[in-house]
Amino acid sequence: MYHASFAAPDGSPTWGVIVEGAAYDLGPSGLGLATDLRDAVGSGVFGQVGDRYLNAPARPEAEIEFLPAITNPSKIICIGVNYRSHQQETGRTEQKAPTVFTRFADTQIGHLRPARMPASTTQFDYEGELALVIGKEAFHVDEADAWDHVAGYAAYNDFTARDWQRATSQWIPGKNFPGTGAFGPYLVSAADLGNVGELVLETRVNGDVRQKASVGDLYFGIPELIAHVTGFTRLAPGDVIVTGTPGGVGMFMDPQGLLSEGDVVEVEITGLGILRNTVRRER
Amino acid sequence: MYHASFAAPDGSPTWGVIVEGAAYDLGPSGLGLATDLRDAVGSGVFGQVGDRYLNAPARPEAEIEFLPAITNPSKIICIGVNYRSHQQETGRTEQKAPTVFTRFADTQIGHLRPARMPASTTQFDYEGELALVIGKEAFHVDEADAWDHVAGYAAYNDFTARDWQRATSQWIPGKNFPGTGAFGPYLVSAADLGNVGELVLETRVNGDVRQKASVGDLYFGIPELIAHVTGFTRLAPGDVIVTGTPGGVGMFMDPQGLLSEGDVVEVEITGLGILRNTVRRER
Repeated sequence: MYHASFAAPDGSPTWGVIVEGAAYDLGPSGLGLATDLRDAVGSGVFGQVGDRYLNAPARPEAEIEFLPAITNPSKIICIGVNYRSHQQETGRTEQKAPTVFTRFADTQIGHLRPARMPASTTQFDYEGELALVIGKEAFHVDEADAWDHVAGYAAYNDFTARDWQRATSQWIPGKNFPGTGAFGPYLVSAADLGNVGELVLETRVNGDVRQKASVGDLYFGIPELIAHVTGFTRLAPGDVIVTGTPGGVGMFMDPQGLLSEGDVVEVEITGLGILRNTVRRER
Repeated sequence: MYHASFAAPDGSPTWGVIVEGAAYDLGPSGLGLATDLRDAVGSGVFGQVGDRYLNAPARPEAEIEFLPAITNPSKIICIGVNYRSHQQETGRTEQKAPTVFTRFADTQIGHLRPARMPASTTQFDYEGELALVIGKEAFHVDEADAWDHVAGYAAYNDFTARDWQRATSQWIPGKNFPGTGAFGPYLVSAADLGNVGELVLETRVNGDVRQKASVGDLYFGIPELIAHVTGFTRLAPGDVIVTGTPGGVGMFMDPQGLLSEGDVVEVEITGLGILRNTVRRER
């Protein structure tokens, strides 16, 4: 079942499920099962909606404004260079531990919202990724218990200002401009999605395939990522781990394939739908 | 005037001012001028308390439990290698832009609280720093306007697990263990503090001076830091920029001077008091 965060007709944030082209409002402006999707994950409603949605107010999916799948995670943990194909193109082939950086929640945007290319960059790039959402408090989690802490999955586009990322040793500035963390459209429960190792991730720019990988090719797999991250920080329900991007980013294409005003970028992952954003230069 | 965040007798968080050894409660359990120090900064009460504190309930300063100077900043922006003396000891002498990383708010501790050395590190280190607190919303701020956005200053100890910091190219894990961001004891308004360029920062371990620098020696000064950081992210009242540490960290001493269980670490900055924390190994 597809879950999503979206705006109610009055513009206030809500959430619900998308079934056969209709968006059922289960949030504050609808059935009121939870305040937001983060709360739904924390309370256990997420993935357990069942037929209750049939009693909720509905609108055509085409009329809703998508918000980031989780609008208000307390922590967004991003993993760098976590596919061999991307390690090779970046020259970072010696990975002894997961490479971790962070995003602020105010960088995020929903499906179909403009990806905001900062006026101060000349190197705006895409990074299609699989994101996972934490389902219960997680600290010092063993790999063997890691899967139990995953509530669900969504697509993510970790848009990056490469010049700001690479200006110093630390990547935070290039990863934290507003309007650059696209997340959605749908959050799907781990139980519904099945074996994530069999998922295929594909990123397209104006229809051209730029990245294509099996999630099974992750260098550090999901249990290793959860064990490593919770080895230093405590995660809460609704927190996000963005698992890394495969080879094929624009920066390392020959010739380079960086983004321009009007480019349409899609990230498609098996069972998670298509995340589509159009690049708009900040004025 | 010294401002501080501390626990009320019932353990709930509050804030107030410290005058002649007495802590006056101006928060929810006292005079109620603002919910917390972040709110006091945002509402303009901070630095404008005047004689009102005389009507507030007071306790001896020695009896209060200090909390981080700002307990709940939405963003904590840390600057790396921002004194020439630290650039030289780390070999990072080519700094074309400020090096930026982040801390989560849940890493913070108050004055006199134990600095928590993770069980998983063998390289726990101190970094004495000057922290500034943002006074009003700040995005795309010019250097010429930067000082207007600073509400006040406090001492910070950016305790670091060096092995986790240096395991990959990105420093986030080594900087985000719980109990490692010591902040306080006092927040002093920019107007009260005067010329920050004349402040002297000194870090001591068990009384031995390890770091000593003039804040005027910052490689990227405060206006440049605010302009750079707000060039990519929006800051709110109560957000924190930790401006970087000078040479003399334990990692690069010969022989190394890393921290052990029971070590007492003090960061003293002119006009901002002494931030003291004792190292406790996590069990």
